[in-house]
Amino acid sequence: MSSILKGVAASNGIAIAKAYRLVEPNLSFDKKSIEDTAEEVTRFQQALSTSVSELEAIRDKAREDLGEDKAAIFEAHLLVLSDPELITPIEDKINNDQVNAEYALKETADMFVTMFEQMDNEYMKERAADIRDVTKRVLAHLLGVEISNPSMVTEEVIIIAEDLTPSDTAQLNRQFVKGFTTDIGGRTSHSAIMARSMEIPAVVGTKSITSSVENGDTVIVDGLNGEVHINPTQEVIEEYKSIHAKYEEQKAEWAKLVNEKTVSADDHHVELAANIGTPKDLDGVQNNGGEGVGLYRTEFLYMGRDELPTEEEQFDSYKKVLEGMKGKPVVVRTLDIGGDKELPYLNLPKEMNPFLGFRAIRLCLEEQEIFRTQLRALLRASTYGNLKIMFPMISNLNEFREAKAILEEEKKSLQESGVEVAEKIEVGIMVEIPSTAVMADIFAKEVDFFSVGTNDLIQYTMAADRMNERVSYLYQPYNPAILRLVKMVIDAAHKEGKWAGMCGEMAGDEIAIPILLGLGLDEFSMSATSILQARSQIRRLNKADMEKLAEEVLQLDTNEAVMEAVKKVISE
Amino acid sequence: MSSILKGVAASNGIAIAKAYRLVEPNLSFDKKSIEDTAEEVTRFQQALSTSVSELEAIRDKAREDLGEDKAAIFEAHLLVLSDPELITPIEDKINNDQVNAEYALKETADMFVTMFEQMDNEYMKERAADIRDVTKRVLAHLLGVEISNPSMVTEEVIIIAEDLTPSDTAQLNRQFVKGFTTDIGGRTSHSAIMARSMEIPAVVGTKSITSSVENGDTVIVDGLNGEVHINPTQEVIEEYKSIHAKYEEQKAEWAKLVNEKTVSADDHHVELAANIGTPKDLDGVQNNGGEGVGLYRTEFLYMGRDELPTEEEQFDSYKKVLEGMKGKPVVVRTLDIGGDKELPYLNLPKEMNPFLGFRAIRLCLEEQEIFRTQLRALLRASTYGNLKIMFPMISNLNEFREAKAILEEEKKSLQESGVEVAEKIEVGIMVEIPSTAVMADIFAKEVDFFSVGTNDLIQYTMAADRMNERVSYLYQPYNPAILRLVKMVIDAAHKEGKWAGMCGEMAGDEIAIPILLGLGLDEFSMSATSILQARSQIRRLNKADMEKLAEEVLQLDTNEAVMEAVKKVISE
Repeated sequence: MSSILKGVAASNGIAIAKAYRLVEPNLSFDKKSIEDTAEEVTRFQQALSTSVSELEAIRDKAREDLGEDKAAIFEAHLLVLSDPELITPIEDKINNDQVNAEYALKETADMFVTMFEQMDNEYMKERAADIRDVTKRVLAHLLGVEISNPSMVTEEVIIIAEDLTPSDTAQLNRQFVKGFTTDIGGRTSHSAIMARSMEIPAVVGTKSITSSVENGDTVIVDGLNGEVHINPTQEVIEEYKSIHAKYEEQKAEWAKLVNEKTVSADDHHVELAANIGTPKDLDGVQNNGGEGVGLYRTEFLYMGRDELPTEEEQFDSYKKVLEGMKGKPVVVRTLDIGGDKELPYLNLPKEMNPFLGFRAIRLCLEEQEIFRTQLRALLRASTYGNLKIMFPMISNLNEFREAKAILEEEKKSLQESGVEVAEKIEVGIMVEIPSTAVMADIFAKEVDFFSVGTNDLIQYTMAADRMNERVSYLYQPYNPAILRLVKMVIDAAHKEGKWAGMCGEMAGDEIAIPILLGLGLDEFSMSATSILQARSQIRRLNKADMEKLAEEVLQLDTNEAVMEAVKKVISE
Repeated sequence: MSSILKGVAASNGIAIAKAYRLVEPNLSFDKKSIEDTAEEVTRFQQALSTSVSELEAIRDKAREDLGEDKAAIFEAHLLVLSDPELITPIEDKINNDQVNAEYALKETADMFVTMFEQMDNEYMKERAADIRDVTKRVLAHLLGVEISNPSMVTEEVIIIAEDLTPSDTAQLNRQFVKGFTTDIGGRTSHSAIMARSMEIPAVVGTKSITSSVENGDTVIVDGLNGEVHINPTQEVIEEYKSIHAKYEEQKAEWAKLVNEKTVSADDHHVELAANIGTPKDLDGVQNNGGEGVGLYRTEFLYMGRDELPTEEEQFDSYKKVLEGMKGKPVVVRTLDIGGDKELPYLNLPKEMNPFLGFRAIRLCLEEQEIFRTQLRALLRASTYGNLKIMFPMISNLNEFREAKAILEEEKKSLQESGVEVAEKIEVGIMVEIPSTAVMADIFAKEVDFFSVGTNDLIQYTMAADRMNERVSYLYQPYNPAILRLVKMVIDAAHKEGKWAGMCGEMAGDEIAIPILLGLGLDEFSMSATSILQARSQIRRLNKADMEKLAEEVLQLDTNEAVMEAVKKVISE
């Protein structure tokens, strides 16, 4: 039977393919008394041999696709399954204790895992992990539960998951993944950002996709409208194929704009820049005609490792990005760690409300060595391109003044020791805390630019954690309160002859763009893959009309009312 | 040696007395092998008999001071200590296992506690609590560790604690407690609010008072300046005695204003109201000349119990407060639970950022039966006085409209079943979320009044958890961003002919009052004990001058700059 689920449109496009469930299997079982233990041992041996053939196939496939290196992991798993020191005690336990194979397996394996993990020996700890993985597989076969083998995917699929973590996505063979759809998440969750950077359609936050879809079901991911069709009729499939073709056509149309300027129909120029996380993202910026980098999130340099990056490592990354952008502006945001982004090696205390806690500039002003190292790396890299430095989570003037003073100190000390530093480096701030938006007129006298970080600004202004499903409906980008704050920031910047940008999700949003153009936003920074579409949209808009629209929506009462008003204008 | 600790001035006044430590004793110990078990049993029996005499004394004292009812608790504790079913196994364990008395006691007691707690029987559960309490006392005597007996305090003392919970304060004999000082907390923490309602001086957040003071040390709590003097010289004591006398004189002066109107020097009238938690707080409101209740926090009705309060229980409380206020305005805030205020029996899911989570009106609109029950109780009580209903945590128009519609539904259904409801009940909102302050002009067309909740408004506007010590410096009431938002709210209200109040800590603050008067705030709601001082201050201020001051400080850059500017004006 066909059905439709509604979710959040997280990445544009249409995908039609078979479902592939990437779901933690339910491996729970009860302890049971067994009379015929011989039969139970046979059952165990069968599960074992099925697991062995499965692992051999996975190993061979990995060797072929990914090389000997990756295949070695599965070789290690196979060794575990042939180790009599693990297998014999399990069989003994079934026979002696007259218990079911599931229980004997789990008890014995857990004992070895605990033992190996307690040893102060990296090799043995890895063996513990191997045993845990392999036990899961055998247990699944005993219970007749399906287990995901994402590396074995050999045809085009749509990934069905509760949520997608970075390590899940690392396992996927990108060649075959045509789309994502998940139970949880919103436009700013990891899986959504990942889908956009992979340029594949995604619908997140469907609430129930994992309980609605079986492996092999036909699924349509409509990333344009946030819908997922499960086992659609042939008619619906044909309809979507034509929508897909039209979208591809449109993308081809957009692609022609890659080297064009971003100008409105009445010839007002704005800058479309990209948000990036690492130098690797520069290809996407080039391919999509980015006019600059509006947000370089430097956190990624600090994450997934055991210690702080050195000044040299940082310098290399910053230089690469600045050179890669060939003189186009690059806005580097200094370290924004804390909140939902933890660095285990900093040993920060657990907080009751991490989003309202010790993070970003607050941490940098206290842990100054971390901050100064980053600033030195940036200053040294500044001669390789057009660097602009941006401080995150600024909530009051004192913080900005203190951060800027530290930057000046490091600059002076570098220059005194003969290091060359770019003559003019613009220094600006993220506007993501309501107090700073409200005080933008005062800030504008001292900063070189503003960039509105809407993801955080919206959650603080509405007092709603955007990651919390129960209140995520309050993440309202078009709420006139948000738009009024954005206006305050833009007006304040212009009054002092400075520029104002935006680097939150909102900057690339089809409904927001007309309003932002009308409010006079100078720079829109977004996922690289949104740039061409935004450019196409802006070229069709008339700035003078959008000014009127903006004025009108600022006086409306709700998020929904604004959405409607904009839709009416852009569909005209 | 004398020393001084700095903290947060949490409640005005000066107290000089001996220190009394209300500190969790350190009852940790190691398991030890004992050879001379007979001696160990004797040691246990001695600890037991000391505990018995101590408990007898406490029981007698409780009977005398608090009545038979309270004394019964200690009677139950004494029963435990004479119960052979508990005592014999402990002595056996010392003898048979050759272990130290501490270990034998703890093991045996824990076994009984676990057993009793698992029974589905309220009586046995209470016995488990008795055993736990008594074990602590005996253990303390075995270890030679001091244990606090707050009910035995018979002389004037200053309470020294890490923090004070509601149950700690319930135990205190208020007659003898002259002041508090604590390691943690700020002006809005429970201990601070408690001190103000008890009208005793307090300094909280000293960081190290518990590790700096021994029982019996002489301590001066300077609640005016946020200082604690430990073992001061006679000279300092004399100096403080004179400050104390002067402060008492001033209080006597203020007390003369109890029946006066609150008018500025140039004859502008404002209303000074009180924040209350229960009907018991009404005495304080009367004694301090409150012109109304500006915030009745109904959460207390729901806390410290196992199930929701019935409509009848709520009706009784609301009626009592409305009658008690004899027609003066009473603003009742509907349930504000969630965030840091948990109700275990609602089984709410744990949240990553509870302050940005599912709380207050968000919860009430989803769990409508809870909300409707409260609204019915309020509507039924409305004929007993001047009721105004206020919704907390409103972030957008939809929420207000939905809440108001539910109120109207309940009103209609009550009236249809013949229940009398007051003709005119004003319905307003807390302004404690930045979006609502920014949208105040739109809200003002639909609400009857605003009350600015500064405690939350400040923390959301600055994106800083006020309970988090690492960022509490960002709790900046005088930051011009906050003042500008307050101005938006007041101006919006007046434009539509509505009134605007404030019920956060800021409303009673000496530095804030001149600005708020200048901005045109109509109602100031504060701890009852702050009212007379505020009245005295306002009577000395000229509103026209304060308007100029307000205009000026809105253009300043920082919290500190505003503070200075106000201090300069009020010290003139």
